[in-house]
Amino acid sequence: MSEYVAPLKDMQFVLDELVDMDSIRQLPECEEISTDLVEAILDEAGKFASGVLSPLNIVGDKEGVRWQPEGVTTATGWQDAYNQFVAGGWNAISCEPEYGGQGVPRVISTLVEEMWNSANVSFTLCPMLTRGAIESIELRGSDALKQAYLPKLISGEWTGTMNLTEPQAGSDLAAIRSRAVPKADGSYSVHGQKIFITYGEHDLAENIIHLVLARTPEAPEGVKGISLFVVPKFLVKADGSLGARNDVHCVSVEHKLGIHASPTCVMAFGDSEGATGYLVGEENRGIEYMFIMMNAARFSVGLEGVGLAERAYQRATAYARDRVQCPEAGVKGSGKVAIIRHPDVRRMLMLMKSQTEAMRALACVVGSAIDHAQRAPDSTIREQNQAFVDLMIPIVKGWSTENAINIASLGVQVHGGMGFIEETGAAQYLRDARITSIYEGTTGIQANDLIGRKIAREGGKTIGLVITRMREVLQQLQQSTAEPLAAIAKALAAAIEALERAVAFIVASYGKDVRAALVGAVPFLQLFGTVSGGWLLAQGALAAQRKLEAGSDDQAFLQAKIVTARFYADHVLSQAPGLAYTVVEGAAGALAIEDEQL
Amino acid sequence: MSEYVAPLKDMQFVLDELVDMDSIRQLPECEEISTDLVEAILDEAGKFASGVLSPLNIVGDKEGVRWQPEGVTTATGWQDAYNQFVAGGWNAISCEPEYGGQGVPRVISTLVEEMWNSANVSFTLCPMLTRGAIESIELRGSDALKQAYLPKLISGEWTGTMNLTEPQAGSDLAAIRSRAVPKADGSYSVHGQKIFITYGEHDLAENIIHLVLARTPEAPEGVKGISLFVVPKFLVKADGSLGARNDVHCVSVEHKLGIHASPTCVMAFGDSEGATGYLVGEENRGIEYMFIMMNAARFSVGLEGVGLAERAYQRATAYARDRVQCPEAGVKGSGKVAIIRHPDVRRMLMLMKSQTEAMRALACVVGSAIDHAQRAPDSTIREQNQAFVDLMIPIVKGWSTENAINIASLGVQVHGGMGFIEETGAAQYLRDARITSIYEGTTGIQANDLIGRKIAREGGKTIGLVITRMREVLQQLQQSTAEPLAAIAKALAAAIEALERAVAFIVASYGKDVRAALVGAVPFLQLFGTVSGGWLLAQGALAAQRKLEAGSDDQAFLQAKIVTARFYADHVLSQAPGLAYTVVEGAAGALAIEDEQL
Repeated sequence: MSEYVAPLKDMQFVLDELVDMDSIRQLPECEEISTDLVEAILDEAGKFASGVLSPLNIVGDKEGVRWQPEGVTTATGWQDAYNQFVAGGWNAISCEPEYGGQGVPRVISTLVEEMWNSANVSFTLCPMLTRGAIESIELRGSDALKQAYLPKLISGEWTGTMNLTEPQAGSDLAAIRSRAVPKADGSYSVHGQKIFITYGEHDLAENIIHLVLARTPEAPEGVKGISLFVVPKFLVKADGSLGARNDVHCVSVEHKLGIHASPTCVMAFGDSEGATGYLVGEENRGIEYMFIMMNAARFSVGLEGVGLAERAYQRATAYARDRVQCPEAGVKGSGKVAIIRHPDVRRMLMLMKSQTEAMRALACVVGSAIDHAQRAPDSTIREQNQAFVDLMIPIVKGWSTENAINIASLGVQVHGGMGFIEETGAAQYLRDARITSIYEGTTGIQANDLIGRKIAREGGKTIGLVITRMREVLQQLQQSTAEPLAAIAKALAAAIEALERAVAFIVASYGKDVRAALVGAVPFLQLFGTVSGGWLLAQGALAAQRKLEAGSDDQAFLQAKIVTARFYADHVLSQAPGLAYTVVEGAAGALAIEDEQL
Repeated sequence: MSEYVAPLKDMQFVLDELVDMDSIRQLPECEEISTDLVEAILDEAGKFASGVLSPLNIVGDKEGVRWQPEGVTTATGWQDAYNQFVAGGWNAISCEPEYGGQGVPRVISTLVEEMWNSANVSFTLCPMLTRGAIESIELRGSDALKQAYLPKLISGEWTGTMNLTEPQAGSDLAAIRSRAVPKADGSYSVHGQKIFITYGEHDLAENIIHLVLARTPEAPEGVKGISLFVVPKFLVKADGSLGARNDVHCVSVEHKLGIHASPTCVMAFGDSEGATGYLVGEENRGIEYMFIMMNAARFSVGLEGVGLAERAYQRATAYARDRVQCPEAGVKGSGKVAIIRHPDVRRMLMLMKSQTEAMRALACVVGSAIDHAQRAPDSTIREQNQAFVDLMIPIVKGWSTENAINIASLGVQVHGGMGFIEETGAAQYLRDARITSIYEGTTGIQANDLIGRKIAREGGKTIGLVITRMREVLQQLQQSTAEPLAAIAKALAAAIEALERAVAFIVASYGKDVRAALVGAVPFLQLFGTVSGGWLLAQGALAAQRKLEAGSDDQAFLQAKIVTARFYADHVLSQAPGLAYTVVEGAAGALAIEDEQL
């Protein structure tokens, strides 16, 4: 059974050719992020991922977590791995230095996070949720809340959770019923039940800080009456030491298809005297705060998709190199060969590889835009980058996770019958990946956000700018005489036209017939992701071609980048016109059916 | 938790409008298959599926099977269900009446088998494998073997298995090493290990008849040196009673992603004195016999795809009717509505519904061709139908199972977070479906068979005839003035052209550059399946339109058939040109990559 190996070479290629690292280094507090430092961070992270997190992945899947009334026990080795993770300073690499973070640019932590997810997505959920709690408190917490909670959340001594969902309120946050009643001392008494709370209870850290959505007594109905509270598992005394156990308890954990080692908890707040909570920011603005933070969480779930896809690809490739079956087609007198030589197996591996590299490239490009949006001194640059980030996050989330499910499923297929046997490990990636297109907003929710808030509302302005960037790459491709680049250009040209048709349809129809536009939302998300991936792989192929022409001695790798972009063009990008057809033509069939006939 | 309900109305529609039941009734021994009898069979089968098999599905998934040295115990209720299944005569409905079967036409048992698979695919594997053993013995067994084994296999008192795979010989049957040494009494002593043996050991029946591939001492190497043997668990005495325990044992069962209740056994033949086996037909022709029978098994696995897709659709629809979340888009002042009203949920349900109906239609059309191929008095008709069956079985198998995986995954998605919780039941269909594109020949194997033996070898003759039939339907559509039919015609016309381009490429390139053709094999299979489904749904829409125009009082159902075909045209059939692009252009990217760069 092979362990994960970080794809450092492709990661470095993305940083060198698709991200403008020089402009990142010119951002405030990023001056020290030298090439050497980046290399050292990625190298160390790769070692930690392979050496510590990856071996625990199957252990966690098999053992799962154990619930008892007094708490939840994580799998063998989990505690030790978490201690090492925290001691290595990994919990805080992209957090604000003010409270102990290391302020590493997001584009770099994007790659580090991909590694954690490749190695062990169940583990990675814990620091991911902690980061969500940190960001909520950083964003709108009072100084007192910041002082009390941020240092220990950033160090990893404590972990955090996000408590949104209730049984009747999944995607529909307006339906939240949990209550928070003000107390004389300025704190609140919180009551209610939350479900699907990731790492809501565990034994890895001495305190757990719950961020909880609830309604105050006089709050208006709907989303405008929801406030955000900090509810610690143990109350924190003035001196920072732990006080009484708060009235918040994990009453059960779910039995899930995947991510077995990540406790998914039902949390009861205030079953006895009421759970003590502290308001974050102002009353009734909880959803607003949550949405700002949710973008970060959605980006992180997209990275789960990238990480799982890479891991599934690595395992399938290792198996395909190893497994000998049948002679090679078209080779007279061939003996039996490793299945990596069989055309259909190559097709599957290339589908996995090319899409994973496309997803990684997009995540890094968006990661670097996050850095510019947060740190650029010029507000216009910040705004432009934020608009790009807002547009692309539904793609990083929705497209990468839907792809990851298909890629993990292909990984099972490459293994044949062995893929269906749990001990092989390939099936776990499929089971784990299956949640990623659901939590933090389903693909449907991402797609509705994309076409409504991110495209129709501004008449397609930001996506128009992205398409302009795509056309610049296309033009360069069309000027090249190299055969593979011409093939890529052919598919990319048709794909960009298809994307433009679909954008025009959405902009024109959203206001007039929103239901018709919404039928095409997910196909549009898939289309935009597909073309975005093709754009960045094409840009990579151009860079590889330039380096080859300049006499680079890394021929095999650079040729592979070109071939991979070409494969993607012919097998993935080529599906863009069909997706655009569905976006433009597809409403009638879905809307004309009577409910009773479904 | 909803139980399965047989989709009798759509099944009847397929029989009435897409299958020529009159011509079936004119076949020898089919005269008695009246409309009433068919209705009664389907009705009773539906009741058995809902009442007996469906409730055991989750039980079996949870409990799995228990292995002990003395044998394998199936899940609670399994034994009783199997007894009822046998007592009801279901085991033998399509078997030869000569040995106790009921000779029901395949087109009807196709629908019955779909029901069993919808209700409980793990259970259904047992009679499916028994049928495989029956067919092997019917096909080439001596009279003595027939007399000794067929009656009890057909009645279901005994069950059968197929023992092909060995650890080093999965898809590559040429690599089989099991040995069979002739004994003085004409029987053989069989030695070897077989893996992935479905129902290789269990407690449902008093004897298990293994059909085993093995080599005789002087056999040539490769596939031409493999013979087929009957190896019973208990030897059968001359009077038909059970004799000594044979030297064949289940040494372990696999821990699998899905079909938990179906024991997947490692079988040891001849660990002590040698397992007594009886040759079927002639020595060294085992692979040939197995391939004839494998067509039937592949068809049956395709029906697992249809059945699982239907079941996943039913559960998702039930949930979508029930689950209330968010107001309806585009409806001012709408209260919260069931999610079935949300455009993206409708899209997902329609994707599930339309593809499932397309798969069912194709399976029945092929099922009826099997009847004509086996029973038509005119040999030309038999041959034409057999050629059609041979062409389409890779589609029924490969396309239906790949679709089933995606449909089951969509079913999880419709449930949101609840879909990821095992108790909901939606995830089981995904886990169960995941094996169907692997066993009885992976999709890659199906696709290679399709483009090589079924298309290129005969220069595309049979598929050309199918395309002619598609064009006839297209022409009728184009003559219609009804708007949805025109929309279907538009997508179908482009899809047929795409299919023709891809066929021309395969016929031209297979002999010249087989590796290039093979890269496109699976995309071609997907393309051909997609267009076949569109063709039959379009034919159904035409029939529905005719009935509506003739004043049928079943308006809602018939309208839904038209809307469903239209949805499929815009969302599925519209992807055909992209798939054809991949078939024609896609080789270079997959073949140019160096193994080391994967």
